[in-house]
Amino acid sequence: MQHELDGVKAPVQAALESAIARLPGGELRDAMLYAATGGKRLRAYLVLESARLHGIPESAALPVAAAVEALHAYSLVHDDLPAMDDDDLRRGQPTVHVKYSQATAILAGDALQSLAFELLTGEAVGDAGARLRLIRAFARAVGAQGMVWGQALDIAAESAATPLDLPAITRLQGGKTGALIRFAATAGPLAADADPGPLDRYADALGLAFQIADDILDVTGNEATTGKRVGKDGAAGKATFVSLLGLDGARAEARRLADLAEAALDPYGAAAGNLRALARFVIERDT
Amino acid sequence: MQHELDGVKAPVQAALESAIARLPGGELRDAMLYAATGGKRLRAYLVLESARLHGIPESAALPVAAAVEALHAYSLVHDDLPAMDDDDLRRGQPTVHVKYSQATAILAGDALQSLAFELLTGEAVGDAGARLRLIRAFARAVGAQGMVWGQALDIAAESAATPLDLPAITRLQGGKTGALIRFAATAGPLAADADPGPLDRYADALGLAFQIADDILDVTGNEATTGKRVGKDGAAGKATFVSLLGLDGARAEARRLADLAEAALDPYGAAAGNLRALARFVIERDT
Repeated sequence: MQHELDGVKAPVQAALESAIARLPGGELRDAMLYAATGGKRLRAYLVLESARLHGIPESAALPVAAAVEALHAYSLVHDDLPAMDDDDLRRGQPTVHVKYSQATAILAGDALQSLAFELLTGEAVGDAGARLRLIRAFARAVGAQGMVWGQALDIAAESAATPLDLPAITRLQGGKTGALIRFAATAGPLAADADPGPLDRYADALGLAFQIADDILDVTGNEATTGKRVGKDGAAGKATFVSLLGLDGARAEARRLADLAEAALDPYGAAAGNLRALARFVIERDT
Repeated sequence: MQHELDGVKAPVQAALESAIARLPGGELRDAMLYAATGGKRLRAYLVLESARLHGIPESAALPVAAAVEALHAYSLVHDDLPAMDDDDLRRGQPTVHVKYSQATAILAGDALQSLAFELLTGEAVGDAGARLRLIRAFARAVGAQGMVWGQALDIAAESAATPLDLPAITRLQGGKTGALIRFAATAGPLAADADPGPLDRYADALGLAFQIADDILDVTGNEATTGKRVGKDGAAGKATFVSLLGLDGARAEARRLADLAEAALDPYGAAAGNLRALARFVIERDT
């Protein structure tokens, strides 16, 4: 699966670079490119596989994959800010506000969000109806009913008197990391105007499994392989799936969710082999 | 003209409130509503007048006007942050990061941008082609080739060794305040797939006249009427139209630009009377 994920890196990077290269030069553009470079490209892979399952050509899916990664990059830049999670290391490099400045990090994040929407308007993406369905679902995945909502809950939890319980943290992560993963996984049926149900259920389980694996890596991983600081959640006394379920319990829950994700793909039969393999991969990864 | 501007306040506020009311409750939503409330609604008025000139019903233009005001609100929230312009007063009230927190201000701004795009996808706005044209132009007006680009230049100018000259500050303001005003003024022809040329030229002159009036108010105005801190630019040694042209020179240039804006409306004849009056109003306002 690492091989398949690596395979999308070059075309997604090229799509992002070509979109960013059209912008006026300067520190803002430099910071956008810096922020949008690297990463696992898991969300881009989900878009491309979801599109393939619905007969959508890669040339139409690639701008959508680039949009999702631009949006993901913006969310990391803003989440890393001192007023938020205050992280200085990301993808093995200094975070954007460390390398440039806080002002540039705020603006680069803002502009990456606009760029993501602009990418979805491209004619290559599909007919007008398809593009509008994607843009609307994307706006909802990002905003105050999706990713940003989850991040706001996460920030609020840090200063709360009692740590979150399992249902609360499951809901929070369903927004914070789940909403964009859900958009990426359902981009194919959305563009094709088909039933997004199976991929929606797949994404729900996958997103949660992914987050549990992240919490496990925060305890067992090291900075050299993850490319970011580890052990921060435990040190901050933050509730995580590991603090709530224990390490073994979290691993068992991740496996259960990966099974659930695989089962959700039944309607696609053998064609969904790559997405099944991805569900195993996200819980076994070490980065 | 104040009467006409006041007339759009209630419907625009209602459109924003109804869009925000659909979001999950909590501090994030509260902060979004707080940020989106109040203001001159100049940009909303431009959208509604531009639409009227092209036969677009107010029911179709109102979500676009609300989108522009949501976007404008996000830009103010982020610009006011300590890492940016560090303002504590806006529209006569504490800024969002003062009333809530920096984290909430960053997230509320982010979510207001997503909400603006979501508003443009609404079926009431027009057919799919019209909505896509608006969304694409909007993304470009906002991002790293428009408003955010101008704000980045403005931040960079603060730490530059020499103050900006007139051509540089004109270009900067063409992005920072001009890009969204241009989008608002051309929303009508964009939606109607008509020539945006005359309103584009109107907006270029209006936006610059508006900014010059802002610079004049920063010197001559007071906090009670403007609702924001004044005298900051001079204290910071920042180049403004007043520092470059002098107070009388700036007033003359604003009048020249208002004349230019009026003249650009000739193709619309008497129907553009409100926009002509607006061009006088923006250079005579005291808030």
